[in-house]
Amino acid sequence: MAEETKVRFGILGCAHIAIKVCKAITTAPNTKLQAIGSRSFEKAATFAAEHGLPEAVRVYGSYESVLEDDEVDAVYIPLPTGLHVTWAVRAAERRKHVLLEKPVAMNAGELDRILEACEANEVQFMDGTMWVHHPRTAKMKEALSDTQRFGQLKWIHSCLTYNPGPEFLKHSIRVKPDLDGLGALGDTGWYCIRAILWAMDYELPKSVLAFPGAILNEEGVIISCGSSMHWEDGKSASFHCSFLTYMTFDITVLGTKGCLRLNDFTLPFEENFGYATFSEASEMDYGKIEQGRWCPKASEHVVETEFTQDVWMVKEFASLVQKVKRCEMKPEKVWPIVSRKTQLVLDAVKESIERGYQPVEIVS
Amino acid sequence: MAEETKVRFGILGCAHIAIKVCKAITTAPNTKLQAIGSRSFEKAATFAAEHGLPEAVRVYGSYESVLEDDEVDAVYIPLPTGLHVTWAVRAAERRKHVLLEKPVAMNAGELDRILEACEANEVQFMDGTMWVHHPRTAKMKEALSDTQRFGQLKWIHSCLTYNPGPEFLKHSIRVKPDLDGLGALGDTGWYCIRAILWAMDYELPKSVLAFPGAILNEEGVIISCGSSMHWEDGKSASFHCSFLTYMTFDITVLGTKGCLRLNDFTLPFEENFGYATFSEASEMDYGKIEQGRWCPKASEHVVETEFTQDVWMVKEFASLVQKVKRCEMKPEKVWPIVSRKTQLVLDAVKESIERGYQPVEIVS
Repeated sequence: MAEETKVRFGILGCAHIAIKVCKAITTAPNTKLQAIGSRSFEKAATFAAEHGLPEAVRVYGSYESVLEDDEVDAVYIPLPTGLHVTWAVRAAERRKHVLLEKPVAMNAGELDRILEACEANEVQFMDGTMWVHHPRTAKMKEALSDTQRFGQLKWIHSCLTYNPGPEFLKHSIRVKPDLDGLGALGDTGWYCIRAILWAMDYELPKSVLAFPGAILNEEGVIISCGSSMHWEDGKSASFHCSFLTYMTFDITVLGTKGCLRLNDFTLPFEENFGYATFSEASEMDYGKIEQGRWCPKASEHVVETEFTQDVWMVKEFASLVQKVKRCEMKPEKVWPIVSRKTQLVLDAVKESIERGYQPVEIVS
Repeated sequence: MAEETKVRFGILGCAHIAIKVCKAITTAPNTKLQAIGSRSFEKAATFAAEHGLPEAVRVYGSYESVLEDDEVDAVYIPLPTGLHVTWAVRAAERRKHVLLEKPVAMNAGELDRILEACEANEVQFMDGTMWVHHPRTAKMKEALSDTQRFGQLKWIHSCLTYNPGPEFLKHSIRVKPDLDGLGALGDTGWYCIRAILWAMDYELPKSVLAFPGAILNEEGVIISCGSSMHWEDGKSASFHCSFLTYMTFDITVLGTKGCLRLNDFTLPFEENFGYATFSEASEMDYGKIEQGRWCPKASEHVVETEFTQDVWMVKEFASLVQKVKRCEMKPEKVWPIVSRKTQLVLDAVKESIERGYQPVEIVS
């Protein structure tokens, strides 16, 4: 792609996740890394040097400077959640398109301020949930939509946990109320909720009821929790998220006739090898039952991919930005809508915990 | 084993599951199939002929006749749950040892009457949960108990479902209030609860809270439901059971350092091939991470077995019966205790549903 049509990215902050996204921006065919800013010039310069950013990348000692750069089209914001509303709104007001790390806000009220700013300034908004952009995800959706194989969706369970250890639990920004104040619910529960909504074609549940026994730290930040969710028509789901156990990235989606399972849904085991898999079992496999094997094992589906999912994400975002820049379309609304639905469910789970495990209705 | 020391079994009823257990009794080295009784002689005779029972097996036209046979040491009772209390108590009063199909009773009150009768008459009691007797289960327990690999247990999820279809949902005894009145909770939820308790070393949860949106049929029998469970010390679990979706037999047990997963825990995929597997992932596998694979896949453990799990069950039961018969020991109390704990949790989940999804404390 010609250099002049590439979307030029500025990065606000030097979070660990920015390493991956910087690499994705330099890899995607339609994006270019233009600038990086941190609270101090030294920090930004060190980050640029340590991670081998191209020499042309501009290094700034403030976030504001990135927003003031007229040759920055879009920003990626991996700042702590508590800072999102301030910087995403400022970015939109500067007419920068916004790729915002998840969880997108402390609550739907904050997110609405961000989305209103994006809409008023006609910039594209997208959150940083990478796995939905992997080609595997589209293939899985095809499988779930095949009523012959899968039947009607009835139940989903997702579990996303990792155990970053005692130092993290004491000092990480991910457990600080004023920084990533949603704790494990925001960091890993976000993925569970998003995956459940994705499988449900983004239909919001009627209500949620958190599992008793959520674990909060001394400052009231969630370290481990879970919830059931249910829909008017009898569909239901549950999830568990935590900073206390071994790494899991599990989802099981159950239909009347089939089942889809992954243990690596947010980050494929073999991502860098150019493919990813998902497993699926179905009534239709009964025909294949061998002697002595009463229940068919799930079959593995391999999906080849040219890029890793982070590259797919920035490529998709940039492609929408290009269309907006060329005045071919208004910003695509699907992405703000799914971010907002995810945040609404997340807020409801948090409220259910705060209200002593009462059911909370979801009002969109 | 000499014929005269084998435990002689009588079967009450010709349920489908009896086919498997009859075969197990004729296969196990320490058991012998002595008699089968049904409500009609024809039904029992047809069952014996169709399933090739040995000619020496006595065929009776009533359950009572089996209990009156002095050469029957033990009975296997696969009758509908609603009939358990009557026939298990009568069997115990006739000094027959009792192998009782799950779910063992409509509630813990009924089960207590059964257990009291067994204790008063000094007969062995065991329920028909087969998977706990598979050698794989002991190996899995070893893995969970290895704190170096697994760390501390924090979370369990189990999901057990199948979709027997509309005719079953209309006519099966498994959805009739007076027969198997616990529906899917008794049939498949039993396994989830038992597996969770097994992993928790049979420590009862403090309380349960059923998931809103349980599905009941017109007669009030549970077709699909689930629940969260939690323990004083912050451990928690959830399960989902249903007659509405594709076949799943899943359990995931999460510790601080490792994870154990099965998709065939109640009935191994390859059972008849003489082995079963389980999968396990652990922090200790990080050492094996290959380039580009950021998270280790679970490793598969193969457990060889001489018998299928139904044979292991009757063999274990019969071995206890033999010891009681030889006056070497009183009936083993572990099995009644774990049945009762399973029933207590099951009752609490049912109560939580009936009370409109209120938390229910478990009192043992």
